[in-house]
Amino acid sequence: AFRELFLDLHPADQAEVFLELDEERAVVYEFLSPEEFAEVFDSFEPEVQKEVALQLNDQYAAEVYNNMYADDVADFLGELEPRQMTHILQAMDQEDANDVRELLAYEDKTAGAIMTKEFVSIKATDTIDEVIDHLRREGPDAETIYYLYVVDEEEKLAGVASIRDLIVADSDRTVSEVMSSRVVSVHVEDDQEEVAQLIQKYDFLATPVIDSEGRLAGIVTVDDALDVLAEEASEDIGEISGSRGSTDVSVNAFKAARLRAPWIILLMFLGLFTAQVIGWFESTLESVVLLAAFIPMIMGSAGNTGTQSLAVSVRALATGNIERKGLWRTISREFSTGIMIGVASGIVITILLYLFYGEPLIGVIVGFSIMISLGMASVIGTLVPLVINKLKLDPAIASGPFITTLTDIISLLIYFTVASSLIQSI
Amino acid sequence: AFRELFLDLHPADQAEVFLELDEERAVVYEFLSPEEFAEVFDSFEPEVQKEVALQLNDQYAAEVYNNMYADDVADFLGELEPRQMTHILQAMDQEDANDVRELLAYEDKTAGAIMTKEFVSIKATDTIDEVIDHLRREGPDAETIYYLYVVDEEEKLAGVASIRDLIVADSDRTVSEVMSSRVVSVHVEDDQEEVAQLIQKYDFLATPVIDSEGRLAGIVTVDDALDVLAEEASEDIGEISGSRGSTDVSVNAFKAARLRAPWIILLMFLGLFTAQVIGWFESTLESVVLLAAFIPMIMGSAGNTGTQSLAVSVRALATGNIERKGLWRTISREFSTGIMIGVASGIVITILLYLFYGEPLIGVIVGFSIMISLGMASVIGTLVPLVINKLKLDPAIASGPFITTLTDIISLLIYFTVASSLIQSI
Ligand SMILES: [Mg+2]
Ligand SMILES: [Mg+2]
Ligand SMILES: [Mg+2]
Ligand SMILES: [Mg+2]
Ligand SMILES: [Mg+2]
Ligand SMILES: [Mg+2]
Ligand SMILES: [Mg+2]
Ligand SMILES: [Mg+2]
Ligand SMILES: [Mg+2]
Ligand SMILES: [Mg+2]
Ligand SMILES: [Mg+2]
Ligand SMILES: [Mg+2]
Ligand SMILES: [Mg+2]
Repeated sequence: AFRELFLDLHPADQAEVFLELDEERAVVYEFLSPEEFAEVFDSFEPEVQKEVALQLNDQYAAEVYNNMYADDVADFLGELEPRQMTHILQAMDQEDANDVRELLAYEDKTAGAIMTKEFVSIKATDTIDEVIDHLRREGPDAETIYYLYVVDEEEKLAGVASIRDLIVADSDRTVSEVMSSRVVSVHVEDDQEEVAQLIQKYDFLATPVIDSEGRLAGIVTVDDALDVLAEEASEDIGEISGSRGSTDVSVNAFKAARLRAPWIILLMFLGLFTAQVIGWFESTLESVVLLAAFIPMIMGSAGNTGTQSLAVSVRALATGNIERKGLWRTISREFSTGIMIGVASGIVITILLYLFYGEPLIGVIVGFSIMISLGMASVIGTLVPLVINKLKLDPAIASGPFITTLTDIISLLIYFTVASSLIQSI
Repeated sequence: AFRELFLDLHPADQAEVFLELDEERAVVYEFLSPEEFAEVFDSFEPEVQKEVALQLNDQYAAEVYNNMYADDVADFLGELEPRQMTHILQAMDQEDANDVRELLAYEDKTAGAIMTKEFVSIKATDTIDEVIDHLRREGPDAETIYYLYVVDEEEKLAGVASIRDLIVADSDRTVSEVMSSRVVSVHVEDDQEEVAQLIQKYDFLATPVIDSEGRLAGIVTVDDALDVLAEEASEDIGEISGSRGSTDVSVNAFKAARLRAPWIILLMFLGLFTAQVIGWFESTLESVVLLAAFIPMIMGSAGNTGTQSLAVSVRALATGNIERKGLWRTISREFSTGIMIGVASGIVITILLYLFYGEPLIGVIVGFSIMISLGMASVIGTLVPLVINKLKLDPAIASGPFITTLTDIISLLIYFTVASSLIQSI
């Protein structure tokens, strides 16, 4: 009865139930065939997979991996030590293991690394009847049967037909009559984010992946595109906030601190430079002590504006909009926006400080500094991620904390330069 | 020849070619049937749709809308003035218009608003042969035919069968023999982000949407889940950075400034409070002038730590991880992480300032303040978005700029409190 109830659930829910069990887990292994457990195992997070894998006996485990899709096995093995990986690959069926080895050979986060080998390929000369027969036999092993890829004798991609095309057509026609020969495909080395953007743009359920010889090497399915988009969004947010690799709450506090502390300490050193700047302008500060009171506000406003521009830039890179709109238009829009916000904020604060403190000079100094600082901050916020991306440097440098530390220093320099020249000229 | 070449392209590419044309656009309307142009029109961004719609003659336009999926028409109409919307709905076929009206009645960003009405529903007593016949006739009009929804006499959802299930089974069996009666569904009022998370979790191609009477009201397809995830990621990044609604580079500079400036000015006012705090501690500052030099660094470090915790919190809400891991565990992990980063940074800076300035007291004051400030900042960064979410307040309040402005004030208070008590006690 347990078996029936359990199997009645969706594999993702089976996985949740399984994780609630402790000693009783052994019961599940006894009840479920490796084929059935493969779907449960696939629904676990990578860390859980590692833990559960240790509890399985070797033969059962190997059968589980044989029954998973190659891309999912590759994802799991990618988390293990090389020695464990080799051990598992040797225990698996030769054919399944070779598919997995091929995927592992591609660079991380490329189409080749996330594609699956379990697709349906057919010939243009097949009749629809023959294809349906083929699906009856091969269908259960393929990750998706909704798109059928037509290949020629050299395994080159010649077209695509959907199940919808087949069902609507007469069963004695050939594939060449219903297929579309214009196929959008990606290359094994394409970045996973570009693949996901393509699937999103065309509303595909899967996209074929071509290797360097032009052969059909695999397909990326839409469920993987969803995972890629979510992963890239986490990555972008991690980068904007300087907390890459620790945005996931399942990472423990010590590991999160170890990942983030170096970044905070590095920026603290950089921030010491602001102490230096204040030292340079000690005499200006001594002659008008009130100047010190507005340091935090000016730096804060510049940091906020820089953060806004940073978000625009990071998002434009992630959605591919930067290519559509042009680099130059993005930068000039952000600069104009920054200047406009600067002018508005500068006017407001000048008037306010005059009313509040009755000192027109302080008002003008602060207002004018805000204006210039905000324009500068928006350019820095926009440019840094774009430059990092062009030079293919570590995108973590484009984080919000880095930008605000940079704008802290620059706005402080602007403030004291404006203040000392205006004070001297009077 | 143009017609053939053009139609040979994918609708998303046809849309791009079309936008390159200027006066020649009229040629496309002449060559393409409304049915063919519907797919092109659907690939445009909302602003482009508005612009192109004005160029179409009324009858052609109405036919285009009749041939689009109801959810896509609703998306487009949602961007128009109520008067234009009514006008278009009156010109459309009664039946198609009613589908669109139903979707428009649901609240924005819910399952009801993003679902489509064009799904295939079948009866449990149908034979597979009958279903295939039904698909041949109705298939071309449905948004997806890969999942077939089984409904009873009251239109209540009774099961689901995939095309794969039908193809693998014998054609004289009934639907009830191959369908799965355990169907995961969502409610019309569910948030679109939850729907997308569910589709991602179960690797669905579509999920059925149930209305308040328990009837099958529509389906949300995976391509819409991709769009929702991308939209929500943009929204989250907009919120983290205080630039909501202007992260898209196609928004013009003036509009972007108008959206962002109020936020910057508001925070500038809040930032004026830091001037107040510095005023309160004027005597402390006068007795140890060097204290002023470290204000920016302490505030900066607190802001950076707060931003990191904010990212964790926002991401946990977006991925639904917060429910899986528990609110309390998230908060306590972030607090521990903040304290650990604070202790590490505090020790480093104390030693550094001692070596640099030879003043142990300044080192201890700054180091101790950093320690407390970073712990506080991480709690603020984590809690603010969670509280905002629970109280269903405007999530823009949970932005990075707001958090850093808050941590600026609090860390300044901590710094001067620590400084004045340590200085007095000596
Ligand atoms: Mg296999
Ligand atoms: Mg994968
Ligand atoms: Mg799409
Ligand atoms: Mg896959
Ligand atoms: Mg998957
Ligand atoms: Mg990325
Ligand atoms: Mg700051
Ligand atoms: Mg219609
Ligand atoms: Mg839609
Ligand atoms: Mg998934
Ligand atoms: Mg749709
Ligand atoms: Mg769509
Ligand atoms: Mg959201």
